[in-house]
Amino acid sequence: MTTLPQDMLAIEISRPGGPEVLRTVRRPLPDVPAEGVLIAVEAAGVNRPDALQRQGVYPPPAGASDIPGLEVAGTIASVGAGVRGLEVGDKVTALVAGGGYARFCVAPAGCCLPWPDGYGAVQAAALPETFFTVWSNVFERGRLQAGESFLVHGGTSGIGTTAIQLARAFGARVFATAGSADKCEACRRLGAEIAVNYRTDDFVAALKAATDGRGVDVILDMVGGDYVDRNYELAAIDGRIVQIAFLGGAKATANFAKLMQKRLVHTGSTLRPREASFKAGIASALRDKVWPLLADGTVAPVIDRVFAFEQAAEAHAYLEADHIGKIVLTFD
Amino acid sequence: MTTLPQDMLAIEISRPGGPEVLRTVRRPLPDVPAEGVLIAVEAAGVNRPDALQRQGVYPPPAGASDIPGLEVAGTIASVGAGVRGLEVGDKVTALVAGGGYARFCVAPAGCCLPWPDGYGAVQAAALPETFFTVWSNVFERGRLQAGESFLVHGGTSGIGTTAIQLARAFGARVFATAGSADKCEACRRLGAEIAVNYRTDDFVAALKAATDGRGVDVILDMVGGDYVDRNYELAAIDGRIVQIAFLGGAKATANFAKLMQKRLVHTGSTLRPREASFKAGIASALRDKVWPLLADGTVAPVIDRVFAFEQAAEAHAYLEADHIGKIVLTFD
Repeated sequence: MTTLPQDMLAIEISRPGGPEVLRTVRRPLPDVPAEGVLIAVEAAGVNRPDALQRQGVYPPPAGASDIPGLEVAGTIASVGAGVRGLEVGDKVTALVAGGGYARFCVAPAGCCLPWPDGYGAVQAAALPETFFTVWSNVFERGRLQAGESFLVHGGTSGIGTTAIQLARAFGARVFATAGSADKCEACRRLGAEIAVNYRTDDFVAALKAATDGRGVDVILDMVGGDYVDRNYELAAIDGRIVQIAFLGGAKATANFAKLMQKRLVHTGSTLRPREASFKAGIASALRDKVWPLLADGTVAPVIDRVFAFEQAAEAHAYLEADHIGKIVLTFD
Repeated sequence: MTTLPQDMLAIEISRPGGPEVLRTVRRPLPDVPAEGVLIAVEAAGVNRPDALQRQGVYPPPAGASDIPGLEVAGTIASVGAGVRGLEVGDKVTALVAGGGYARFCVAPAGCCLPWPDGYGAVQAAALPETFFTVWSNVFERGRLQAGESFLVHGGTSGIGTTAIQLARAFGARVFATAGSADKCEACRRLGAEIAVNYRTDDFVAALKAATDGRGVDVILDMVGGDYVDRNYELAAIDGRIVQIAFLGGAKATANFAKLMQKRLVHTGSTLRPREASFKAGIASALRDKVWPLLADGTVAPVIDRVFAFEQAAEAHAYLEADHIGKIVLTFD
C-alpha cells in the first residue's frame, strides 16, 4: 500500500463571490468511509453547479465536502473496509457530492466507473456529471424510446453535448437549441438533426414544422422561465418535459390546459442530493449501456478546454462566459 | 329480438347557452357499430362536461353524438356483429363519448360493465364517468399506493366523492378540500381523515401539519389557477399531481423549482377523447378491482338528486348551483 500524504492541495471557496474567491489551500485528506474509496485525483470536471455553489446560492448537501467539484478521475489510493470489487491502483472516474477540486477525493464505491477503454484522465473526468444526469433524466425519468423525438435546450453545454449524442445513439430523432450559428453547427456535428438558434428563431414553430405538427416527445430543459409554456406548446401528446435547471428563472406562467389535454408529464430532478444507492443504480446502467459506446467511439465527451488545477478561477470565468462542452482541471 | 322504434326522445342543445337551451326532441336511433351495442337507456348521469358542452366551450370529439351525456345505464337492445360476451337483454352501465341524454344510446362493447349486484338503473348510471376518471387518473396515472397520502380538491363533487372512497378503500390516507362546513362533514363521512374548508382555511398549512411536514403523495386537482403553485408547495418528495379540470383557470404562475427539487410529476388527462380500447382497459380494471367493492357496499356512488328526463334543464341548473355527489336523469 502506498503511503498517503498528511495533507493535500485543494481549492476552497473563501467567501461567496466571483471566480476570484476560489483559493488554493492545504487541507487534511478526507476520511475514507467503509463503503467508499479514496481517489488520487488526476483530473476534475468543472460544472455550472460549482459556480452556483461559489456564488453562495447552491450550498452543498448535508455531509458533503465544502470543497467544490462533482466529478473526478484518478487512481484509487485507499479502499474502505466494506468495499468489494475495487482495488488500490484501479483507474476510476466517479460522481461525487462535492470535494472534487482537490488532490484526493472520497467517492462512494457504487459511484465509481472504470475509465473507458483508451481513455485518459481528462476524458474520464469529463464523463460523470453529464452522463449520470442525462441517463437519469432523459432515459429513466423521461423514458425516451428509440423512434421518439427529443429536444435539449442549451445543446452546447456539457449536458447538451452529452444528451445530443446519447439520444442519437439510442435511436431518437434529436433537436437542440443554442445561442449562435456556430453553436448550432456544433450541435448538428454531434448528431442533432435540427439546431435552432434561439436568438433569431422560434423553436416552437421550427420544431412543430419539423414534426408535421406532432411536436416533440421528450424535452430536457435547463432554462425554465418562458420556456415552460413554450415547451408545453411544443410537446407531443403524451410528451415528457424534464427540468434540470432554471437558467431563465424558476417562476413562470403557463397554460396548464395544454399539459392536461396532451397528457404531458412535467417533472424534474437534481442529482446531487440523491442517496449513493440511487447513483449506484445509474452507474450500473451506464456501465452496461453507455460505456461500450464510449469505448468504440460512438459517443465521446466534448471537451472545450483544460486548465491546470491552480487556474480554477480562470476556469470558472471561462465557464461563465462562452464555451462548447466540458471544462476540466488537471494536476500535473 | 325486440322490435326497435323508428325514432326516440333525446335532449339536444338547441344553441350555446344556459340550462334553458336544452330541448326535448325526436331523433332517429343511432346506428350500432360492429364493435358496439345499442342500450335502451333507463338512467343517464349528468356531469360538468355536459354543462360545458351546453355552454359551447367543450365541443364533442370527432365522431361523437352532438347529444350530451357521458354515461348511461339500461338494457342492451341490439348488439353489433363483432361483439362477443354481451347479449340483448343484458343490464349494463356504460361510459360513452356522448349521446347519453336519449332513450337509446350506442356504446363501445368494451366500455360496458354489468350493473353491480343489487344495483338499479339510477345507481348504475351514476358510476361510469367518475369511476373511470378516478381509476385512470388516481390509480393508473397518479400511481397511488396503499400507505400513501392522497388529496382531492372538490371533495363533494361526483369525482370527489368517488375519489375519497376509492383512495380510502385501497389503503391511502385521504384528505379533501370543500367549500363549506357541511361539505367538509360529507367528505369525512365518506372516509376523508381531514377535510379542509378552503373558504376559511389554508389547505397547504393544514395538510403539511397533518403529515408532519412531509406533504401529500398524490393530489387530484380540478381547480388549477393558484392551486397549481399551492399543490407544488404541498406535494411530498416524488409526489404526483394529476390535473383533470381547471375550474379556477388553466393559466397560472408557479415556482417550478419546487417541481424539480421535489421531483414532482405534474400531469393530467381528459378521458372523453381517448380511444375505446383505452377505456376498455379501464373498464377491465374496474370490473376486477372495484365492482366487488360496489357489490359488497364498501364503496357506493353518492347520489344527490334524480330528475325526470324531461327536466334536464332543471338538472343542469342544479348541477351549476350547489350539490353533493351525482345528479341522474331517469326515464319512467
